[in-house]
Amino acid sequence: MRIGVLTGGGDAAGLNPAIRAVVIAADRAGSTVIGLHDGWAGLLEGGQSRTLHASDLEGWLRAGGTLLGSSRTNPLALEGGIDEVLAQATAHQLDALVAIGGDDTLSVAAALCEHGFPVVGLPKTVDFDLAVTEYCIGFDSAVAIVAEACDRLATTGASHHRTMVLEVMGRDTGWLAIMGALAGGADLAVLPEFPMDLGAIVDHALARRAGGHGSSLILIAEGATIEGLETLSDEGSTDAFGHVALARRAVGERLADALAGATGLDTRATALGHVQRGGPPAAADRIWPTRLGVAAVESLMAGTFGVCLGVVSAQPRAVPLGDVVAFQKRVPAELYATFRAVS
Amino acid sequence: MRIGVLTGGGDAAGLNPAIRAVVIAADRAGSTVIGLHDGWAGLLEGGQSRTLHASDLEGWLRAGGTLLGSSRTNPLALEGGIDEVLAQATAHQLDALVAIGGDDTLSVAAALCEHGFPVVGLPKTVDFDLAVTEYCIGFDSAVAIVAEACDRLATTGASHHRTMVLEVMGRDTGWLAIMGALAGGADLAVLPEFPMDLGAIVDHALARRAGGHGSSLILIAEGATIEGLETLSDEGSTDAFGHVALARRAVGERLADALAGATGLDTRATALGHVQRGGPPAAADRIWPTRLGVAAVESLMAGTFGVCLGVVSAQPRAVPLGDVVAFQKRVPAELYATFRAVS
Amino acid sequence: MRIGVLTGGGDAAGLNPAIRAVVIAADRAGSTVIGLHDGWAGLLEGGQSRTLHASDLEGWLRAGGTLLGSSRTNPLALEGGIDEVLAQATAHQLDALVAIGGDDTLSVAAALCEHGFPVVGLPKTVDFDLAVTEYCIGFDSAVAIVAEACDRLATTGASHHRTMVLEVMGRDTGWLAIMGALAGGADLAVLPEFPMDLGAIVDHALARRAGGHGSSLILIAEGATIEGLETLSDEGSTDAFGHVALARRAVGERLADALAGATGLDTRATALGHVQRGGPPAAADRIWPTRLGVAAVESLMAGTFGVCLGVVSAQPRAVPLGDVVAFQKRVPAELYATFRAVS
Amino acid sequence: MRIGVLTGGGDAAGLNPAIRAVVIAADRAGSTVIGLHDGWAGLLEGGQSRTLHASDLEGWLRAGGTLLGSSRTNPLALEGGIDEVLAQATAHQLDALVAIGGDDTLSVAAALCEHGFPVVGLPKTVDFDLAVTEYCIGFDSAVAIVAEACDRLATTGASHHRTMVLEVMGRDTGWLAIMGALAGGADLAVLPEFPMDLGAIVDHALARRAGGHGSSLILIAEGATIEGLETLSDEGSTDAFGHVALARRAVGERLADALAGATGLDTRATALGHVQRGGPPAAADRIWPTRLGVAAVESLMAGTFGVCLGVVSAQPRAVPLGDVVAFQKRVPAELYATFRAVS
Repeated sequence: MRIGVLTGGGDAAGLNPAIRAVVIAADRAGSTVIGLHDGWAGLLEGGQSRTLHASDLEGWLRAGGTLLGSSRTNPLALEGGIDEVLAQATAHQLDALVAIGGDDTLSVAAALCEHGFPVVGLPKTVDFDLAVTEYCIGFDSAVAIVAEACDRLATTGASHHRTMVLEVMGRDTGWLAIMGALAGGADLAVLPEFPMDLGAIVDHALARRAGGHGSSLILIAEGATIEGLETLSDEGSTDAFGHVALARRAVGERLADALAGATGLDTRATALGHVQRGGPPAAADRIWPTRLGVAAVESLMAGTFGVCLGVVSAQPRAVPLGDVVAFQKRVPAELYATFRAVS
Repeated sequence: MRIGVLTGGGDAAGLNPAIRAVVIAADRAGSTVIGLHDGWAGLLEGGQSRTLHASDLEGWLRAGGTLLGSSRTNPLALEGGIDEVLAQATAHQLDALVAIGGDDTLSVAAALCEHGFPVVGLPKTVDFDLAVTEYCIGFDSAVAIVAEACDRLATTGASHHRTMVLEVMGRDTGWLAIMGALAGGADLAVLPEFPMDLGAIVDHALARRAGGHGSSLILIAEGATIEGLETLSDEGSTDAFGHVALARRAVGERLADALAGATGLDTRATALGHVQRGGPPAAADRIWPTRLGVAAVESLMAGTFGVCLGVVSAQPRAVPLGDVVAFQKRVPAELYATFRAVS
Repeated sequence: MRIGVLTGGGDAAGLNPAIRAVVIAADRAGSTVIGLHDGWAGLLEGGQSRTLHASDLEGWLRAGGTLLGSSRTNPLALEGGIDEVLAQATAHQLDALVAIGGDDTLSVAAALCEHGFPVVGLPKTVDFDLAVTEYCIGFDSAVAIVAEACDRLATTGASHHRTMVLEVMGRDTGWLAIMGALAGGADLAVLPEFPMDLGAIVDHALARRAGGHGSSLILIAEGATIEGLETLSDEGSTDAFGHVALARRAVGERLADALAGATGLDTRATALGHVQRGGPPAAADRIWPTRLGVAAVESLMAGTFGVCLGVVSAQPRAVPLGDVVAFQKRVPAELYATFRAVS
Repeated sequence: MRIGVLTGGGDAAGLNPAIRAVVIAADRAGSTVIGLHDGWAGLLEGGQSRTLHASDLEGWLRAGGTLLGSSRTNPLALEGGIDEVLAQATAHQLDALVAIGGDDTLSVAAALCEHGFPVVGLPKTVDFDLAVTEYCIGFDSAVAIVAEACDRLATTGASHHRTMVLEVMGRDTGWLAIMGALAGGADLAVLPEFPMDLGAIVDHALARRAGGHGSSLILIAEGATIEGLETLSDEGSTDAFGHVALARRAVGERLADALAGATGLDTRATALGHVQRGGPPAAADRIWPTRLGVAAVESLMAGTFGVCLGVVSAQPRAVPLGDVVAFQKRVPAELYATFRAVS
């Protein structure tokens, strides 16, 4: 069997362990693995690839990001994209494909299956918003990074009696914010799922100070909306010198400014940004990608396609690709309530 | 309500976050929490305790070990121990108890419930061998420490073309060894669940060298048995000078000596020992103890006793105390096979 | 002897180990230590303080920030400030003072000495710009954090073939940027000491891509100036809707935008911000604060005042306070050249 | 110029950054670098080598150990060893050599220089016992590992009210023990330089407990001697069953047993062993090896041989090779006294 493997979408810790497991397990099964570069771009015209051998993988288990490269190229968004992918798969003499990525990548995988090409998926997203699966590659490492940042900001906040605002990833869902808040001991978490009023946040900061706490740590997901917080339009505005307007400012920074203005408290914002994705994988992002990568190859060998290897009840489980991307998993009210109960 | 809380057995990362969650959640519910020192010893005559307030817990989320102290004192092993515990609970005017620990601690908790005293448990063990629950306090942090040790030993092994043997905790089960091996990229894991022959390990080391690998990393659980590996009796022997014999040597050291002798390869042993338990909790050992601690208080408030708050299908779940200690969860053959498939 | 101790200016990792050493050493010498809260504010009217005992310091060696609190309050900038500090010192019956801080804090210390009040200083600054001393409290920990961020950004950059721009602290000097660049493997470092042309940076990014490198990592100090990079005025401008102008954007973000525009390369900015200061001290920020704190007390006991305990030739050394703040230590051309030689 | 580079003796974090700097700097200077495998073995008959290009070094800055391999092979200990090294150097057409290692490696380098072959050295030892230089490759990373182990053992000790004994590297000198003790907050450090009586250690442990401390953390260098502590002969003894005697037990373990016996306190030993050498280099072990590697190439280009590039007054400095190995640098009494002043 000739198996292609690719990683699509934003990079995350745990992709290399997944690729490594696929290559070793396939190699043991007598198959050949072709690593396709830069996500789906590797299966479009001009795409690059290389044969991966088990002996090439020294250090991959411990390496962050993806050594195959990634991109956000989406064949579904390109005229004739799926046909081209199928043609390239034929040109590469691929019998099957392992696609590692989030909803975009897995949606393409599902489309290829509908066209009769055998694909299995592996779930990757630092947003943790794929349905069904209890585990997504990269999320645990990102939570650890956010927790460490909280530890750092907490000591700085306490030293200076400041209100610290930490903005983390999460356009549509607040998984990283809520888990980071639980792990990092934040006293407030602002999530896309539970919009807040600026007034309520101001009240929280003042009440905390009145309650004798010298400092405060507020986590906010980049996609959270706050009623009453002004958003500068990101088009059309010009400054006094006629320059094109600044890009829209991040929500954490705007919240910090508004809080400082309304409370008079020394308030500072930090946006973790790209450091949330990179660096060596946490233990869970080595163990699970390995287990799921092996299961993906077993699935291919057993002729089971059109599935994503996820985690259900703490066990590897093949789930229909469509189910995993059927909806965005959101932070449930119970979890948010648990956080509120200790913060 | 007056709620006692205690931590029993070996210390682990995540105990303080659990205590913190119990105290804050109980405080919000209008209850008082009494921290009992040093496990069940805190509920025996002469035991010590102190009232815990939410405002005393600065830093507890990030602190390793248990700030209440722990011990292996087991009232079930003491004549009249359970009666004394009940008497002390009455003397402290406790309405209920949260007991955090492993099979020993939770067995006492179950016994108290049978005597009509309301207890809920929280599962703690770096051995991960409690039944039913998918999560045990301390295990994830220990896995991270083992994985980091593997990363260190791997570079030393590669630099010197050595066979490195790493002994980790696990008297009866190999969870820490197998997860550490998956996370740390070991090429062999020797577990209590799957006894091996010394000859097979020798063959593995030689085959690996023959296959062009400069080094090898072997994880072994302290309780693993190896057919053909001599065990010095730990009683009766004396050395040439008449001194009492040395304590039994650790299995990792004995394996390394035997391997060196049989293969001629430069072979070194390391026993991680006590560093596996201590230090700041990993993110999972802050998040889950917090969630389970809140759930424990909710359970008490709802009048549900005799349960342990564990994790089932990635959700907090109250499980009968007896079920959690009914048997020792062992590494299943499928997981071991997955490791063998990539090593 | 009654000794006051305070920490002034921005928080840094290593302040608590320094305070701890002062307290324990003074305690052994039969002295009493009064911890003054929030820097010089603790020695102004209404300032707060508490007596510190050796037995209160559990965990201080490992704790980030300053458990005494800090502030940027500068008596030299207040009408009659020095007199008030002297009056408060008398009111507290202080015989001497240990002032831990950067150029502001140590300048006040020098002024007090000129007024006859005995002070010894300890050097603290994550900017590393104090003269004479080879070590400043907090710098090594900050370098470690920047290096770790580089490791993370490097894997993300490589995965996506991006040019990553990392902005670090350093208003006037580029120590953190150059050491971070050396430790983190950046291919360009932009420092206040060595202004660059935007064109040269563009050329670097393009040349690197042409040379076959998939990605680039550029470190820039927050105070670096780039010829040709537009700076939006931070006053007077309004947007199209008449709102008050945005704050001036950080230099890293502006550089990334300009680079993306000029090169067409995918370019992303990250500003580490406040995470550079906080969290547990690195080993050097435990060892040296301890050694210097002990030396500070020895200096007081020996009646040597008006000095700062710094490091010279890898040894603790008492240096006149005035010398340490005489000028801002800047990154020398040789060090910059060394970085250029390997990047 | 054709420059050979090798790493000898025990592996350490920072070797790869040093090699990387040598290769890049030499490459820029138009020279070719030959990487010799496994220390001096690479320059003996049958030794292996490969040409190193700047483009091959992706990831070397962050990689632990030595990617060239190392060994303890010492040509000075082999009949005709130096002549063979010279012959091989000629066969490889080497114009000069960069030798990275400790006293053994640098002694060979000095001998080669006496024979007219140009060598410059770089100082590497986790023992920190080379003379003159303020920095040795690998030491800072090892200190960080020891400090982290102390943090872990301290929480375990406190949880169980135990006396924890941690044995660290240091056959002849106690640098790692004293720096680890300062960084890790040990209350006692036992060094080869300052022999102690078992009775004094027992008194310390008892006094500490009497003083209200629940636990104790004792660091001991593997080469420390304790008057009154029995050492089992490592030759000649047999056990009751006639088996060959066990290897001599580590000093930490013996101390723990003796302490437990004499004090009745719960006492546990841990030997960190090989984890002290491996893993990713700390920031200092990236920065200094880079600076010194560049300086080494500059020295070669300037025709200055027979020197070791060390650090003096916090600057790179070329020191005669003979001076660096002239004597073993030992922990001075002042540093030990500083530790005693805070513990």
